[in-house]
Amino acid sequence: MKVTFITGNQHKLKEAENIFQKFGIKLKHVNIGYPELQGNLEEVAKYGAKHVAKRLEEPVIVEDAGLFIKALDWFPGPYSAYVQDTIGNEGILKLMKNVEDRYAEFRSVIGYSAPNVEPKIFLGTVKGHISKEEKGNCGFAFDPLFYPSENNKTFGEISTYEKNEFSHRRRSLEHFCNWYKNK
Amino acid sequence: MKVTFITGNQHKLKEAENIFQKFGIKLKHVNIGYPELQGNLEEVAKYGAKHVAKRLEEPVIVEDAGLFIKALDWFPGPYSAYVQDTIGNEGILKLMKNVEDRYAEFRSVIGYSAPNVEPKIFLGTVKGHISKEEKGNCGFAFDPLFYPSENNKTFGEISTYEKNEFSHRRRSLEHFCNWYKNK
Repeated sequence: MKVTFITGNQHKLKEAENIFQKFGIKLKHVNIGYPELQGNLEEVAKYGAKHVAKRLEEPVIVEDAGLFIKALDWFPGPYSAYVQDTIGNEGILKLMKNVEDRYAEFRSVIGYSAPNVEPKIFLGTVKGHISKEEKGNCGFAFDPLFYPSENNKTFGEISTYEKNEFSHRRRSLEHFCNWYKNK
Repeated sequence: MKVTFITGNQHKLKEAENIFQKFGIKLKHVNIGYPELQGNLEEVAKYGAKHVAKRLEEPVIVEDAGLFIKALDWFPGPYSAYVQDTIGNEGILKLMKNVEDRYAEFRSVIGYSAPNVEPKIFLGTVKGHISKEEKGNCGFAFDPLFYPSENNKTFGEISTYEKNEFSHRRRSLEHFCNWYKNK
């Protein structure tokens, strides 16, 4: 039982390896680019997985993730990486100034596809809220702004190990493994 | 001499028809979707044009546009439509509060492709700056926030007819027509 993870991100790979091992699924790693669509996470992951499965002629998974802020109509969502690279955490705090409803979610979507198999998606979510200022130097990107409901520290204040215990990515990967193992 | 414009936007089509007529190029219109990549305007237009030219087996153009704000690292750029639909003009004004450098550009890119012809792109730009509040009810999206350098009224305060005289889209369309006519 084997699947190929398409990613250029070593952290994602490491996180996936630990989880797949527990399920007894072998993980192969390939670092090739694929076309990322504009659209929601599900569309991006489906299109990417289908594209790569066809190209490599084997079962593959891709992963896409984002921060979704309710008061901002779920901005930055699928464009989180771009928004982080441009307006950054400072921009998010400006947009959230004097905003009372601070609810937000991190979402991760795994897209799975194989030759002649229509893509399937697996969602993982962590609920929480946006802080009033950056907290902590751990993690990356929006981590110092996000308080998960499970914790009174931001993702920027806990270790990667601790974060991975209940991260959105862990949840989407586990959903996938549960299904793949039993299919 | 003929080319097919792929768009679902009647305003864009009307604007293009007027310009193409002057160049003696016949414009056919097809309204079908195509995959829009994440990436800069040029990548989006190239990928889209190539995809549709292959599918329709004829010469096609697609158009993509955005607002680029210098102080925000050129945000919202290629994701202008998404940003307009989520944080909107209010969000842009919040991000630009107390920001001195208000320089911004509207950019339009035409992507051209034909069967077995690598895509080419044509850029049109209007330079200007971001207002301190919304001005005017004409136009749409970011128009009420944008003062073109050529004018002391925002794009929201002038008629579509007037705006089309020097719009970014007019410029990209004219660049394309000039090249297409003489190729």
